[in-house]
Amino acid sequence: MEPPRSLQQRKQDTLGRLESHVDAWIATADTAGNGYLLPLSFLWDGTGVIVSTPRSSTTARNLSGGGRVRIGIGQVRDVTMIDGMAEPILDDPIKDAFAAKHGWDPRNETDDYAYFRIVPYRMQTWREVNELPGRTLMRDGAWLA
Amino acid sequence: MEPPRSLQQRKQDTLGRLESHVDAWIATADTAGNGYLLPLSFLWDGTGVIVSTPRSSTTARNLSGGGRVRIGIGQVRDVTMIDGMAEPILDDPIKDAFAAKHGWDPRNETDDYAYFRIVPYRMQTWREVNELPGRTLMRDGAWLA
Repeated sequence: MEPPRSLQQRKQDTLGRLESHVDAWIATADTAGNGYLLPLSFLWDGTGVIVSTPRSSTTARNLSGGGRVRIGIGQVRDVTMIDGMAEPILDDPIKDAFAAKHGWDPRNETDDYAYFRIVPYRMQTWREVNELPGRTLMRDGAWLA
Repeated sequence: MEPPRSLQQRKQDTLGRLESHVDAWIATADTAGNGYLLPLSFLWDGTGVIVSTPRSSTTARNLSGGGRVRIGIGQVRDVTMIDGMAEPILDDPIKDAFAAKHGWDPRNETDDYAYFRIVPYRMQTWREVNELPGRTLMRDGAWLA
Protein backbone atom coordinates (compact mmCIF):
# COMPACT_ATOMS: atom_id res chain seq x y z
CA MET A 1 0.00 0.00 0.00
CA GLU A 2 1.37 3.43 -0.96
CA PRO A 3 1.60 6.08 1.78
CA PRO A 4 -1.45 8.39 1.86
CA ARG A 5 -1.30 11.46 -0.37
CA SER A 6 -1.44 14.97 1.00
CA LEU A 7 -4.66 16.96 0.64
CA GLN A 8 -2.93 19.22 -1.90
CA GLN A 9 -1.85 16.20 -3.96
CA ARG A 10 -5.32 14.70 -3.84
CA LYS A 11 -6.86 17.94 -5.05
CA GLN A 12 -4.37 18.11 -7.92
CA ASP A 13 -5.03 14.45 -8.86
CA THR A 14 -8.77 15.03 -8.69
CA LEU A 15 -8.69 18.13 -10.89
CA GLY A 16 -6.53 16.18 -13.35
CA ARG A 17 -9.05 13.37 -13.36
CA LEU A 18 -11.96 15.79 -13.87
CA GLU A 19 -10.16 17.17 -16.93
CA SER A 20 -9.02 13.90 -18.45
CA HIS A 21 -11.71 11.35 -17.64
CA VAL A 22 -14.53 10.86 -20.10
CA ASP A 23 -17.23 9.05 -18.14
CA ALA A 24 -18.75 9.19 -14.68
CA TRP A 25 -21.35 7.15 -12.79
CA ILE A 26 -24.34 9.40 -12.11
CA ALA A 27 -26.67 8.31 -9.30
CA THR A 28 -30.03 10.03 -8.97
CA ALA A 29 -33.32 9.30 -7.25
CA ASP A 30 -37.01 9.88 -7.70
CA THR A 31 -39.25 11.13 -4.92
CA ALA A 32 -40.57 7.62 -4.25
CA GLY A 33 -37.17 6.47 -2.97
CA ASN A 34 -36.00 4.63 -6.08
CA GLY A 35 -32.34 4.88 -6.99
CA TYR A 36 -31.15 5.23 -10.56
CA LEU A 37 -27.68 4.95 -12.06
CA LEU A 38 -26.08 5.40 -15.44
CA PRO A 39 -22.58 5.99 -16.73
CA LEU A 40 -22.55 9.25 -18.70
CA SER A 41 -19.97 11.26 -20.58
CA PHE A 42 -19.15 14.44 -18.68
CA LEU A 43 -17.34 17.75 -18.94
CA TRP A 44 -15.83 19.64 -15.98
CA ASP A 45 -16.12 23.39 -16.57
CA GLY A 46 -14.35 24.48 -13.38
CA THR A 47 -17.53 24.77 -11.33
CA GLY A 48 -19.47 21.60 -12.03
CA VAL A 49 -19.91 18.30 -13.81
CA ILE A 50 -21.84 18.77 -17.05
CA VAL A 51 -23.85 15.92 -18.52
CA SER A 52 -26.35 15.63 -21.33
CA THR A 53 -29.14 13.07 -21.56
CA PRO A 54 -32.50 12.79 -23.35
CA ARG A 55 -35.05 15.07 -21.71
CA SER A 56 -37.49 12.15 -21.43
CA SER A 57 -35.00 9.85 -19.64
CA THR A 58 -35.18 8.78 -16.01
CA THR A 59 -31.89 10.55 -15.29
CA ALA A 60 -33.11 13.86 -16.75
CA ARG A 61 -36.38 13.59 -14.84
CA ASN A 62 -34.53 12.88 -11.58
CA LEU A 63 -31.98 15.67 -12.19
CA SER A 64 -34.88 18.08 -12.70
CA GLY A 65 -36.42 16.95 -9.41
CA GLY A 66 -33.98 18.89 -7.25
CA GLY A 67 -32.68 16.06 -5.08
CA ARG A 68 -29.05 15.42 -4.28
CA VAL A 69 -26.99 13.75 -6.97
CA ARG A 70 -23.97 11.56 -6.32
CA ILE A 71 -21.22 10.99 -8.84
CA GLY A 72 -18.53 8.33 -8.85
CA ILE A 73 -15.41 8.64 -11.01
CA GLY A 74 -12.60 6.11 -11.16
CA GLN A 75 -12.64 2.70 -9.54
CA VAL A 76 -13.03 1.21 -6.10
CA ARG A 77 -9.40 1.55 -5.03
CA ASP A 78 -8.92 4.97 -6.60
CA VAL A 79 -12.20 6.78 -6.45
CA THR A 80 -13.60 10.30 -6.42
CA MET A 81 -17.11 10.75 -5.01
CA ILE A 82 -18.95 13.99 -5.65
CA ASP A 83 -22.19 15.11 -4.00
CA GLY A 84 -23.95 17.92 -5.78
CA MET A 85 -27.13 19.59 -6.96
CA ALA A 86 -28.16 19.81 -10.61
CA GLU A 87 -29.07 22.96 -12.47
CA PRO A 88 -30.17 23.22 -16.12
CA ILE A 89 -27.74 24.61 -18.70
CA LEU A 90 -28.99 26.75 -21.53
CA ASP A 91 -25.89 28.56 -22.79
CA ASP A 92 -24.30 27.40 -26.03
CA PRO A 93 -20.58 27.87 -25.20
CA ILE A 94 -20.81 25.09 -22.60
CA LYS A 95 -22.57 22.85 -25.11
CA ASP A 96 -19.84 23.62 -27.65
CA ALA A 97 -17.15 22.68 -25.10
CA PHE A 98 -19.00 19.45 -24.34
CA ALA A 99 -19.12 18.56 -28.05
CA ALA A 100 -15.42 19.42 -28.44
CA LYS A 101 -14.39 17.13 -25.57
CA HIS A 102 -16.44 14.14 -26.68
CA GLY A 103 -16.56 14.49 -30.47
CA TRP A 104 -20.30 14.08 -30.00
CA ASP A 105 -22.88 16.86 -30.04
CA PRO A 106 -26.19 15.93 -28.43
CA ARG A 107 -27.80 18.90 -30.22
CA ASN A 108 -27.45 16.87 -33.44
CA GLU A 109 -29.41 13.92 -32.08
CA THR A 110 -33.03 13.40 -33.09
CA ASP A 111 -33.94 13.03 -29.39
CA ASP A 112 -34.29 16.25 -27.41
CA TYR A 113 -31.26 16.30 -25.08
CA ALA A 114 -31.17 18.30 -21.87
CA TYR A 115 -27.93 19.58 -20.31
CA PHE A 116 -27.28 19.81 -16.57
CA ARG A 117 -24.48 21.15 -14.44
CA ILE A 118 -24.08 19.21 -11.21
CA VAL A 119 -22.47 21.66 -8.80
CA PRO A 120 -20.57 19.89 -6.03
CA TYR A 121 -20.99 20.78 -2.38
CA ARG A 122 -18.85 17.86 -1.22
CA MET A 123 -15.99 16.02 -2.87
CA GLN A 124 -14.07 13.06 -1.48
CA THR A 125 -11.22 11.02 -2.92
CA TRP A 126 -9.30 8.02 -1.68
CA ARG A 127 -7.37 4.98 -2.81
CA GLU A 128 -6.84 2.40 -0.09
CA VAL A 129 -8.17 2.31 3.46
CA ASN A 130 -5.18 4.35 4.69
CA GLU A 131 -6.52 7.28 2.66
CA LEU A 132 -9.96 7.29 4.29
CA PRO A 133 -8.79 9.86 6.85
CA GLY A 134 -8.43 13.15 5.00
CA ARG A 135 -10.58 12.00 2.09
CA THR A 136 -12.72 15.15 2.08
CA LEU A 137 -11.48 17.71 -0.46
CA MET A 138 -14.49 20.01 -0.50
CA ARG A 139 -17.10 20.72 2.15
CA ASP A 140 -20.14 22.99 1.75
CA GLY A 141 -18.82 23.94 -1.68
CA ALA A 142 -15.44 25.16 -0.40
CA TRP A 143 -12.14 23.45 -1.24
CA LEU A 144 -10.21 22.45 1.88
CA ALA A 145 -6.86 22.73 0.07
CA MET B 1 -16.61 -1.87 -33.30
CA GLU B 2 -17.13 -5.61 -32.78
CA PRO B 3 -20.37 -7.17 -34.07
CA PRO B 4 -23.07 -7.39 -31.38
CA ARG B 5 -23.06 -10.51 -29.22
CA SER B 6 -25.99 -12.93 -29.13
CA LEU B 7 -28.29 -12.89 -26.11
CA GLN B 8 -26.89 -16.27 -25.06
CA GLN B 9 -23.32 -14.95 -25.24
CA ARG B 10 -24.23 -11.85 -23.25
CA LYS B 11 -25.84 -13.95 -20.54
CA GLN B 12 -22.74 -16.15 -20.35
CA ASP B 13 -20.43 -13.09 -20.19
CA THR B 14 -22.62 -11.52 -17.53
CA LEU B 15 -22.68 -14.61 -15.33
CA GLY B 16 -18.90 -14.82 -15.72
CA ARG B 17 -18.58 -11.21 -14.65
CA LEU B 18 -20.89 -11.76 -11.64
CA GLU B 19 -18.64 -14.63 -10.54
CA SER B 20 -15.28 -12.96 -11.15
CA HIS B 21 -15.76 -9.26 -10.44
CA VAL B 22 -15.10 -8.00 -6.96
CA ASP B 23 -16.78 -4.59 -6.82
CA ALA B 24 -20.00 -3.00 -8.02
CA TRP B 25 -21.46 0.51 -7.97
CA ILE B 26 -24.54 0.46 -5.73
CA ALA B 27 -27.04 3.30 -6.25
CA THR B 28 -29.76 3.78 -3.67
CA ALA B 29 -32.13 6.56 -2.69
CA ASP B 30 -33.89 7.93 0.34
CA THR B 31 -37.56 8.83 0.38
CA ALA B 32 -36.78 12.54 -0.03
CA GLY B 33 -35.45 11.96 -3.55
CA ASN B 34 -31.74 12.06 -2.77
CA GLY B 35 -29.50 9.68 -4.68
CA TYR B 36 -26.61 7.85 -3.05
CA LEU B 37 -23.78 5.84 -4.57
CA LEU B 38 -20.89 3.77 -3.31
CA PRO B 39 -18.64 1.09 -4.78
CA LEU B 40 -18.99 -2.05 -2.66
CA SER B 41 -17.53 -5.53 -2.72
CA PHE B 42 -20.17 -8.05 -3.75
CA LEU B 43 -20.90 -11.76 -4.00
CA TRP B 44 -23.27 -13.34 -6.54
CA ASP B 45 -25.01 -16.36 -5.01
CA GLY B 46 -26.99 -17.36 -8.08
CA THR B 47 -30.08 -15.39 -7.13
CA GLY B 48 -28.83 -11.96 -6.11
CA VAL B 49 -26.01 -9.52 -5.46
CA ILE B 50 -24.89 -9.70 -1.84
CA VAL B 51 -23.28 -6.70 -0.17
CA SER B 52 -22.34 -5.84 3.39
CA THR B 53 -22.12 -2.36 4.85
CA PRO B 54 -22.32 -0.80 8.32
CA ARG B 55 -25.88 -0.86 9.60
CA SER B 56 -25.68 2.86 10.39
CA SER B 57 -24.52 3.86 6.87
CA THR B 58 -26.59 5.74 4.30
CA THR B 59 -26.49 2.74 1.96
CA ALA B 60 -27.79 0.34 4.63
CA ARG B 61 -30.54 2.80 5.58
CA ASN B 62 -31.58 3.21 1.96
CA LEU B 63 -31.43 -0.56 1.27
CA SER B 64 -33.72 -1.10 4.26
CA GLY B 65 -36.16 1.48 2.87
CA GLY B 66 -37.56 -0.84 0.22
CA GLY B 67 -36.96 1.31 -2.86
CA ARG B 68 -35.48 0.11 -6.10
CA VAL B 69 -31.72 -0.33 -6.19
CA ARG B 70 -29.59 -0.02 -9.31
CA ILE B 71 -26.22 -1.66 -9.71
CA GLY B 72 -23.52 -0.95 -12.27
CA ILE B 73 -20.71 -3.41 -12.96
CA GLY B 74 -17.94 -2.91 -15.48
CA GLN B 75 -17.29 0.26 -17.40
CA VAL B 76 -19.08 2.56 -19.80
CA ARG B 77 -18.33 0.61 -22.97
CA ASP B 78 -18.81 -2.81 -21.38
CA VAL B 79 -21.41 -2.47 -18.70
CA THR B 80 -23.98 -4.54 -16.86
CA MET B 81 -26.85 -2.67 -15.20
CA ILE B 82 -29.01 -4.48 -12.66
CA ASP B 83 -32.29 -3.23 -11.18
CA GLY B 84 -33.37 -5.02 -8.05
CA MET B 85 -34.91 -4.97 -4.61
CA ALA B 86 -32.96 -5.53 -1.40
CA GLU B 87 -33.75 -8.07 1.28
CA PRO B 88 -31.85 -8.62 4.53
CA ILE B 89 -29.63 -11.70 4.89
CA LEU B 90 -29.37 -13.47 8.21
CA ASP B 91 -27.99 -16.92 7.31
CA ASP B 92 -24.36 -17.65 8.06
CA PRO B 93 -23.42 -19.82 5.01
CA ILE B 94 -23.87 -16.77 2.74
CA LYS B 95 -21.75 -14.66 5.08
CA ASP B 96 -19.10 -17.40 5.04
CA ALA B 97 -19.12 -17.41 1.22
CA PHE B 98 -18.79 -13.62 1.18
CA ALA B 99 -15.78 -13.79 3.50
CA ALA B 100 -14.21 -16.56 1.39
CA LYS B 101 -14.53 -14.53 -1.82
CA HIS B 102 -13.13 -11.32 -0.41
CA GLY B 103 -10.69 -12.48 2.26
CA TRP B 104 -12.58 -10.06 4.48
CA ASP B 105 -15.23 -10.93 7.02
CA PRO B 106 -17.44 -8.00 8.04
CA ARG B 107 -18.51 -9.98 11.12
CA ASN B 108 -15.01 -9.36 12.49
CA GLU B 109 -15.30 -5.57 12.22
CA THR B 110 -16.03 -3.49 15.30
CA ASP B 111 -18.87 -1.76 13.41
CA ASP B 112 -22.13 -3.66 13.16
CA TYR B 113 -22.36 -4.73 9.49
CA ALA B 114 -25.65 -5.57 7.81
CA TYR B 115 -25.90 -7.94 4.82
CA PHE B 116 -28.34 -7.53 1.94
CA ARG B 117 -29.24 -9.56 -1.12
CA ILE B 118 -30.28 -7.37 -4.04
CA VAL B 119 -32.52 -9.59 -6.14
CA PRO B 120 -32.64 -8.48 -9.78
CA TYR B 121 -35.88 -8.04 -11.66
CA ARG B 122 -34.13 -6.53 -14.69
CA MET B 123 -30.66 -6.98 -16.08
CA GLN B 124 -29.15 -5.27 -19.10
CA THR B 125 -25.72 -5.51 -20.68
CA TRP B 126 -24.08 -3.80 -23.61
CA ARG B 127 -20.76 -2.66 -24.99
CA GLU B 128 -21.05 -0.17 -27.83
CA VAL B 129 -24.13 1.51 -29.29
CA ASN B 130 -24.66 -1.42 -31.68
CA GLU B 131 -25.43 -3.58 -28.63
CA LEU B 132 -28.20 -1.33 -27.30
CA PRO B 133 -30.82 -3.39 -29.17
CA GLY B 134 -31.09 -6.70 -27.35
CA ARG B 135 -29.44 -5.37 -24.19
CA THR B 136 -32.14 -6.77 -21.88
CA LEU B 137 -31.12 -10.13 -20.41
CA MET B 138 -33.73 -10.40 -17.69
CA ARG B 139 -37.21 -8.89 -17.41
CA ASP B 140 -39.59 -9.22 -14.44
CA GLY B 141 -37.05 -11.56 -12.85
CA ALA B 142 -36.99 -14.02 -15.77
CA TRP B 143 -33.94 -14.61 -17.97
CA LEU B 144 -34.69 -14.03 -21.64
CA ALA B 145 -32.00 -16.50 -22.74
